[in-house]
Amino acid sequence: MYPPDFFAVVLAGGRGTRFWPLSRRNVPKQCLSIDGGPTLLQRTVARTGLPPERILVVTGPDMVDPVREQVPGIEILVEPSPRNTAPAIAWATWEVARRGGASCAVLPSDHVIGDEPAFRASLARAAEVAAGGALVTLGVRPTRPETAYGWIEPEDRPDGAPDATDRAVRRFVEKPPLETAVRLLAGGRHLWNAGMFVWTTRSLLEAVALHLPGTAAMIAKLDGGATIADAWGLSDATSIDYGVMERARDIRVVPVDFGWSDVGSWPALLDVLPLGEGGVTVADAVVARRAEGNIVHARGKLVALLGVDDLIVVDTPDALLVARREDAQEVRLLLEEVERRGLGRYA
Amino acid sequence: MYPPDFFAVVLAGGRGTRFWPLSRRNVPKQCLSIDGGPTLLQRTVARTGLPPERILVVTGPDMVDPVREQVPGIEILVEPSPRNTAPAIAWATWEVARRGGASCAVLPSDHVIGDEPAFRASLARAAEVAAGGALVTLGVRPTRPETAYGWIEPEDRPDGAPDATDRAVRRFVEKPPLETAVRLLAGGRHLWNAGMFVWTTRSLLEAVALHLPGTAAMIAKLDGGATIADAWGLSDATSIDYGVMERARDIRVVPVDFGWSDVGSWPALLDVLPLGEGGVTVADAVVARRAEGNIVHARGKLVALLGVDDLIVVDTPDALLVARREDAQEVRLLLEEVERRGLGRYA
Repeated sequence: MYPPDFFAVVLAGGRGTRFWPLSRRNVPKQCLSIDGGPTLLQRTVARTGLPPERILVVTGPDMVDPVREQVPGIEILVEPSPRNTAPAIAWATWEVARRGGASCAVLPSDHVIGDEPAFRASLARAAEVAAGGALVTLGVRPTRPETAYGWIEPEDRPDGAPDATDRAVRRFVEKPPLETAVRLLAGGRHLWNAGMFVWTTRSLLEAVALHLPGTAAMIAKLDGGATIADAWGLSDATSIDYGVMERARDIRVVPVDFGWSDVGSWPALLDVLPLGEGGVTVADAVVARRAEGNIVHARGKLVALLGVDDLIVVDTPDALLVARREDAQEVRLLLEEVERRGLGRYA
Repeated sequence: MYPPDFFAVVLAGGRGTRFWPLSRRNVPKQCLSIDGGPTLLQRTVARTGLPPERILVVTGPDMVDPVREQVPGIEILVEPSPRNTAPAIAWATWEVARRGGASCAVLPSDHVIGDEPAFRASLARAAEVAAGGALVTLGVRPTRPETAYGWIEPEDRPDGAPDATDRAVRRFVEKPPLETAVRLLAGGRHLWNAGMFVWTTRSLLEAVALHLPGTAAMIAKLDGGATIADAWGLSDATSIDYGVMERARDIRVVPVDFGWSDVGSWPALLDVLPLGEGGVTVADAVVARRAEGNIVHARGKLVALLGVDDLIVVDTPDALLVARREDAQEVRLLLEEVERRGLGRYA
């Protein structure tokens, strides 16, 4: 059970270029359906289990239309311009406080979570911990030496405390080189920073006041009755991780286990969709001969695979991507090339 | 120049399953555009250079609508039922005679020919030879040890005669095993049977009378005023190659060189379309990184290729095929599987 006056802030400002051509300038990743059902953003909002009036969605001015379309009845906070995550999160937390909220979760809008009851239980547990004054981050048990994530190093556990007990954070290891990531994974103590935070509005705004003077000035100006358009420019353009989490004193991590994936690129679908004929496929039907490990997204179509392995195939009404799975990280380079060639209408 | 009263009979009864999913039950291969321009059938009709009233198109009852749509103003002969090529060709040649035609070319409707003036010159030369009474077949210079074609063995050339001189045919070698095909190619004397014939109506109908008694009875019944529906069942259900060409005495071959391809399956596009980025592509635009030798058909789309080689990618409004190029011959097996699974609406 959440504490009373608990809110959720959903961050929906990213673009998700690695999901091109399904993601587009006007259809960011969080507005996509990965499995043919509700979109990532819709699922994020629904899985909080909170009533609509206790959810705020933050996004940028260029995405406000698609985002609003996805979650009618939810209040949208529109950042005047992109200034990284810290200003948006500080502002949204201030907006929570203004609405009488005492604490909130901050959640990315483009992740997949398998076990939603476990997710809500984790948020509730984190809110309990946060009530003691800490800024809480959720820590996902790592399953591979991932170099694209931040890793959390907790303090050693008190003797006999179970794995899932919340702990103080000793430090964050941001995007480690592979060698380090292998070591962290093998050590068994580190957790992934999934970008999900829980805190009281008071703790967060105090930490902002302490570590981000520009952002604190923005908050003060909002307190004085200014509009966000007038106050926004005062804020420090930095991430919440670098600007607050790595500096604040009382940071705790709640280890979580609810089937998390940030679906960072097409191959992640192998982790979040059921394996079928030829690989994982979002399509009307699949017929495959000697085909394995493919990731296919072609809604409304019959997909026929013959002798092909480990491909990414993404079909949209005006663009078709065929790539090797191991090259998934280069999709954004391909997209840059598309724009460079004056084919921006497909970007 | 063609002789006066020269006709063309265009055979448009095939289905072309190896071009699935672009070819469908109601869109046979000859009704496809391979390069985004006119369809194979339209090009076949146009390249004869004959006026519409001297062209007859033969097709089956299930294809008459798409075929008629392709070539408005051309007379369509509709076979009452499929009985292989000999009955259709005999009937069509009889129809040519009935319209005052003295000789005709019989042409498949689903081939590609690069040099159209050379093609017309070859037909004219063949018509000259046919005027002497022979049944003439066009012989394409082989470029690979193809086991799917019939090969023509000409009589030895008279001393000093140039390569292109017409010659008597000693025998046909139907779909030889690879070993034989390699030998025939190396020998340098054999030619491919491209399924293009030229004859006088009189010579063909005489050969039919001699070798195909059932078909001769059909012709006699037509002569007596019967409809094709009434006469058709009398005909011998056999191919023109087996029923007539391999049996008749006076068969001659005219060697031809006009950039011929039967575009028998997707990889043949590599021979008939210009090589571009990533391979040969029919699409609105292509952006490729480390991609070669692919065959892509996705009209109206941007196609993005990343790290993929030697694939066949065919995109249609309701079906998408991704196959290894070397597996192209299995496309029809895949199509059979599609039908077996009750997905016939995609077949």
